[in-house]
Amino acid sequence: MTTVATERVFNFSAGPAILPDSVLREAQEAIWNIDGSGIGIMEHSHRGKVFDKVIEEAEADCRELAGISDDYAVLFVQGGASHQFFMVPANFLPDGETADYLNTGKWSQGAIKEAKRYGKVHLSASSEDTNFNFIPTGADVKPSDKPVYTHFTSNNTIFGTQFRDEPACGGGGDSFLVCDASSDIFSRPIDVSKYGLIYAGAQKNLGPSGTTLLIVRKDLLERSARDLPTMLRYKTHAENDSRYNTPPTFGIYLMGRVFKWIKSEGGLAAMAARNEAKAKVIYDTIDASAFWNGTAKPDSRSRMNVCFRAPSEDLESKFIKAATDAGMDGLKGHRSAGGMRASIYNAFPNAGCEALAEFMREFERTNG
Amino acid sequence: MTTVATERVFNFSAGPAILPDSVLREAQEAIWNIDGSGIGIMEHSHRGKVFDKVIEEAEADCRELAGISDDYAVLFVQGGASHQFFMVPANFLPDGETADYLNTGKWSQGAIKEAKRYGKVHLSASSEDTNFNFIPTGADVKPSDKPVYTHFTSNNTIFGTQFRDEPACGGGGDSFLVCDASSDIFSRPIDVSKYGLIYAGAQKNLGPSGTTLLIVRKDLLERSARDLPTMLRYKTHAENDSRYNTPPTFGIYLMGRVFKWIKSEGGLAAMAARNEAKAKVIYDTIDASAFWNGTAKPDSRSRMNVCFRAPSEDLESKFIKAATDAGMDGLKGHRSAGGMRASIYNAFPNAGCEALAEFMREFERTNG
Repeated sequence: MTTVATERVFNFSAGPAILPDSVLREAQEAIWNIDGSGIGIMEHSHRGKVFDKVIEEAEADCRELAGISDDYAVLFVQGGASHQFFMVPANFLPDGETADYLNTGKWSQGAIKEAKRYGKVHLSASSEDTNFNFIPTGADVKPSDKPVYTHFTSNNTIFGTQFRDEPACGGGGDSFLVCDASSDIFSRPIDVSKYGLIYAGAQKNLGPSGTTLLIVRKDLLERSARDLPTMLRYKTHAENDSRYNTPPTFGIYLMGRVFKWIKSEGGLAAMAARNEAKAKVIYDTIDASAFWNGTAKPDSRSRMNVCFRAPSEDLESKFIKAATDAGMDGLKGHRSAGGMRASIYNAFPNAGCEALAEFMREFERTNG
Repeated sequence: MTTVATERVFNFSAGPAILPDSVLREAQEAIWNIDGSGIGIMEHSHRGKVFDKVIEEAEADCRELAGISDDYAVLFVQGGASHQFFMVPANFLPDGETADYLNTGKWSQGAIKEAKRYGKVHLSASSEDTNFNFIPTGADVKPSDKPVYTHFTSNNTIFGTQFRDEPACGGGGDSFLVCDASSDIFSRPIDVSKYGLIYAGAQKNLGPSGTTLLIVRKDLLERSARDLPTMLRYKTHAENDSRYNTPPTFGIYLMGRVFKWIKSEGGLAAMAARNEAKAKVIYDTIDASAFWNGTAKPDSRSRMNVCFRAPSEDLESKFIKAATDAGMDGLKGHRSAGGMRASIYNAFPNAGCEALAEFMREFERTNG
C-alpha cells in the first residue's frame, strides 16, 4: 500500500455525500480482510456467516435507532428512490383508485409522474407556484376523501425545504402514509408507527449510492394492486430477508457501520440537536446579512440543505470558486435552482459550518 | 488507521467473489481520498468532474477490452441479473410474440419464468433431464422460426457448465441474441457484434454486487414492446449515460479498476489462457482419480466453476471442513447441486488451484 493522503476537505455535496471518517477507516480494513476471515467484505458470499452477521446487525441497529417494531419489515434493496417512484404505486395503487401526493419539488414530481401510470393522483398540496420555497401546512393541504395512501418527500434537497411534521392525510384506517426520506432519514427522530412505507436512497445520510433502505408495514405486503415481476414485489424481498438475489453487500455493510456510528454519537435525538445547531450557524449568517438571501421560507428551512443566493450570478460564481479554493467543495446549487447549496448531512462536521459562515462574512465584507 | 491484516485465504466463493489484490489496495486509498480531491470515491457527486472521469474511463476501458463498437451502448445499472430477467422481455418481447430460451440451469429457469409473463417462450434446448450436466449443441438445439430474440446463460455457476460458442438461433436479421454473462463475462474474448444484449451482474468477474453491466445494440433501444415506468426502459439509462438517477458510484469505480487490471494482465485472450490453465489443474486431478467425480460432461465443463463429488456426502463434508481449515474457503457446492464447487474467476490465482489439487490428492490418499 502506498501513501494514504490524510487531508480531507469540507464536502458540502448534496449526494453522494460525506461519510463519517471513522466508518471510512473501518471500511479500508474490511475491504481487505473483514473480521479476520482472510476475505474482504465485497468478496464474501451473501449467504455465508460473515455476511449473515453484517446484515443481521444492520437490521437490528436500524430497528434500535428508530424504535421500529416487529410490525415492520426492514429491507435493503437496489435502484434508488427513483425506482421506488413506480414501485409504490405498482404494488399499492389499484387501477382507478386514488393516491394523494404533496408536490414539494423535483423528486415529488418524479414520484407523481410514475404514480399516474397506475391510478389517479390527487395533489393535496403544491408549492410549485412559488418555485417550491415552502412546505404546505394547515389549510394549504387539501386531502382527498379516500386515498389509498398519501405520499410526501420529507426533505427537498434542491430547494432546501423540509417538513417539520407529517402532513395531514385523508382516508380512514386503511389509508397509509408513504415517505421518500432519502435526504433526511435518521437526521432526527421519526415515529415509524405513523407510516406505511418509508424509503430512502442511502447516499445522503446512510451510505454509498446503490443501496436503498425500506421500512414497510408487514400487513401491507399482503396487498397486491397487480401482478408484477418477482423482483418488483415488495413481498419477494421481505420473504427472503433482502436476499432473494444477491444484494448490494458492500452498501449494506457500510450502512450498518453508519448505524453503529449514529448510535455511538447518541442516536437520532443527538443527531437532530447537532443538525439543528449546524444549520443555525449558516442561517444566522444569512439572516444577519443584507448581501445573502435564503431561498426557503424560514419556517420551511431544511436542516440538511441550506440554499442561498448572492446579489448576482457573477458574485455567486466568484464565491463558489473562492470557497472551493479554500477547501469547501460542492457548494454549487442544483442546476434547476441556481445559487449556492450547503448540504450538511449527519456526517458533516460543525467545524465545516463555522468555516463556511466565516467565509461568507468575509466574502460579504470584500464584495458587498 | 489500526493494523491491516495482510493474510488472505484462497477464496473459492461462487459470488460475490474474489477481487484482485491490487484493486483492493487502490480502493483502500480511494474511499478516503481519490485523486487528491480530499474526498473519497463514495462521497463524490455523480455529476462532478471526479466521477465523470471514473465512469468515462470505465466505459472506455470496457469498450477497449471487448472491442465494442459505437453501435453498442455500455451501461451501468442496478438490480443484478435477476432484474434483467424481466427487463429483457418487458422491453423487447411484445404480447403474443415468441422468444427462444435455452434452459441450462437455475438462472436460465429464472429468466424463462419472467419472460412467460410477457410473451411466448419456446425452449429451444434443455439439459434439465440430466440435472443440467451438459450444454446442448448441434441437434439438441431446435430454434423456433421467428423468435424476437434467443436467450442463453453463458456459464452456469451451480452446475459448472459453460457454452463454448454462441448457440444456434432461429429467425432472420431482426432476431437477436441475448446473453446472461454474469459468471463468465470478460473471462475470455467475446465477439459482441453477435449479440443484441449482454448483461452481467458484477459480482463474479467485475466488481462488487449491486452493479450490473449492460452492453446493448443501440438500434434495439428504439424498440419498445410496451409502455414502461421510466426506470425500467433501457432507453432511459442509455440517453442519460447511466446517470438518469444516482448510479452505484462505488461499484462503477471498482469495475473500472478491474477493467484496468484485466488490461494490465494482457486483456481477454490472456485471461482465457490463464483461466483454461487454472481449470485444467483441477480437472486433471479429477480425471486422474477414481475417488473424485466431475459432475459436468467434459465437453461442457466450465472454466469458472469446477463442480465435483466425493464417494459420499460424509466425505464431502469432511473434505470441505478440512479445506477450510487449510485456508481454502467457499468450496461447498450450491444447495441445489451438493458436493463441491471451486469457483476460480479471473482474479483467482493459479496458486490456489495448485493448492486445491494437491489437497485433493492428499485427501484421496488418506480417505480413498
